[in-house]
Amino acid sequence: MKTISLLEPLREDLERVEQKLREPTHLEYPQLTAVLQSLLDSGGKRVRPALALLAGSLYPTDGQKLISLAASVEMLHTATLVHDDLIDGALVRRGNDTLNARWSTGATVLMGDYLFARAAALAAETDDVRVMAIFSDTLMTICSGELRQIFDRHNLPRVDDEAAWEEALARYDQRIHAKTASLFRAATEAAAVLGGAPREQEVALGEYGRLLGTAFQIVDDVLDFEGDESVLGKPVGSDLREGIVTLPVLYFLRDQPQDGRVAAILESAEDDSLVREVVAAIRDSGAIDLALERARSLVAQSQQALSLLPESASRARMWSLADYTVSRNK
Amino acid sequence: MKTISLLEPLREDLERVEQKLREPTHLEYPQLTAVLQSLLDSGGKRVRPALALLAGSLYPTDGQKLISLAASVEMLHTATLVHDDLIDGALVRRGNDTLNARWSTGATVLMGDYLFARAAALAAETDDVRVMAIFSDTLMTICSGELRQIFDRHNLPRVDDEAAWEEALARYDQRIHAKTASLFRAATEAAAVLGGAPREQEVALGEYGRLLGTAFQIVDDVLDFEGDESVLGKPVGSDLREGIVTLPVLYFLRDQPQDGRVAAILESAEDDSLVREVVAAIRDSGAIDLALERARSLVAQSQQALSLLPESASRARMWSLADYTVSRNK
Repeated sequence: MKTISLLEPLREDLERVEQKLREPTHLEYPQLTAVLQSLLDSGGKRVRPALALLAGSLYPTDGQKLISLAASVEMLHTATLVHDDLIDGALVRRGNDTLNARWSTGATVLMGDYLFARAAALAAETDDVRVMAIFSDTLMTICSGELRQIFDRHNLPRVDDEAAWEEALARYDQRIHAKTASLFRAATEAAAVLGGAPREQEVALGEYGRLLGTAFQIVDDVLDFEGDESVLGKPVGSDLREGIVTLPVLYFLRDQPQDGRVAAILESAEDDSLVREVVAAIRDSGAIDLALERARSLVAQSQQALSLLPESASRARMWSLADYTVSRNK
Repeated sequence: MKTISLLEPLREDLERVEQKLREPTHLEYPQLTAVLQSLLDSGGKRVRPALALLAGSLYPTDGQKLISLAASVEMLHTATLVHDDLIDGALVRRGNDTLNARWSTGATVLMGDYLFARAAALAAETDDVRVMAIFSDTLMTICSGELRQIFDRHNLPRVDDEAAWEEALARYDQRIHAKTASLFRAATEAAAVLGGAPREQEVALGEYGRLLGTAFQIVDDVLDFEGDESVLGKPVGSDLREGIVTLPVLYFLRDQPQDGRVAAILESAEDDSLVREVVAAIRDSGAIDLALERARSLVAQSQQALSLLPESASRARMWSLADYTVSRNK
């Protein structure tokens, strides 16, 4: 398992989460198990389960149930990636072939569905109705947001007056809330619920997760312009190629209202040299800095939310994890 | 709402289920709501929620929660249909255009995901962890089975000796359990759990649902050969065209071991006249009767399971619903 050094103190618990994720059910058969393994092997940094573990460790939480919750959050995340890659036609993720690159559409859809079901079953292992309600609510938020993103694709947002700008920003915020922040929030909030945290700490932990997740996604969107293709494992500007307008693009559009190249790409991204030209223009503009500044401000707010919690090593780690979010390069 | 006359006494409760299914959430927006409506409008006979209502009515069950459970079961069913139609490339269901006939793959995948999430949220409204565990377990069973069906497609089962025949039959049973019987069982078992039924009645109701669901799917598979295309709203022999071997085909293969036409269709169903020829051959063989006989025996067993329950109007209706299963023409 590869994780970041900051999460080293959680290694043992994260290993238990891995085992839980890989625990075979009576429903599996060799083909299914093999694919599940390969999806988990090519997984990411396990930030989401780490958040659940950290938040849960603030309280005398049942260890088994906390592991199940953390695994549920990661499984749900994995499920959404399987369907996202299919929808985007992405062939590579984190340097590995995506499932849809190897399998038929039908098998990929069903594999994603199976992972959603596994995630629900892991959530059910917590034996906590509120945790399960958070789980299903978050899943609704994610799907409804992803659908909206499909409807919104290839639309050039208006940013030519203050009201239009505010609305464009609000739509972006709503989208990244659904895509990322809602699950970060679910991880921390559900852990607080499971741990029996006092109500105001439950809210504070939920807010911490939400704000951190929002910053995390903004940084992801920045890395799509700034990142190193070999580190990211995918081409730069991929959102723009898919007709998705992210925060750096919004800032660029606001500052360069006369530039029609973004509109041209949203209409058709077939001209790769134009995409690379616009990616370079956005890198050279102040848009990246503005986006990162917003992410840093959200990180500071997330740390503010932590101040409502009792001091502890876990709280300090959550603080550092927030800082890491804006300093990472992948 | 169209339902069968047998379910008329449940009309009021079924209407409440419809309302529950259509209750907008804060996450919806006009496009999403419109599609959800149209999917529900083109819905079927609501047999699954009716089963939950009937089973729940045997006990002093909280009315609101029972409606949520019944709606959850129907929503889950609707979600699986959306993904099934996409996977099969089906353009028509119950005489209406399927979602994938109108939408992109991506939007269809996400709409199905959203419905799964809604179903989970409805299950969470029961506030019962065992009901939610049944929900997630059933969803896993369904997805794992559908996935296995994809792997098994276009395979000609061996039926040339007793052991091979038993195995072919077991694989078919396993597939229809996942596809249909598991959700029928979830409807009745979860209602019993919600109603606080004694353990042996919970088991009996689960068995009733499972056996009835198995018979229901066998009849569906028979109707795919025997049914009237205009009533079914889809062409006959569609399973075979998709490379799926159902019970009538298994009996036909056992009785006509020298006939190579099924194998030819499983290899390629491009020759429509050959498909129609084999459909006619299966109709003319004893295979349909054998399949229906098996369904009738399962219905009798499901009624046997009911005998463990206290006598009541609901129990009598469940008995009749079992009889209806094998007499329906769509």
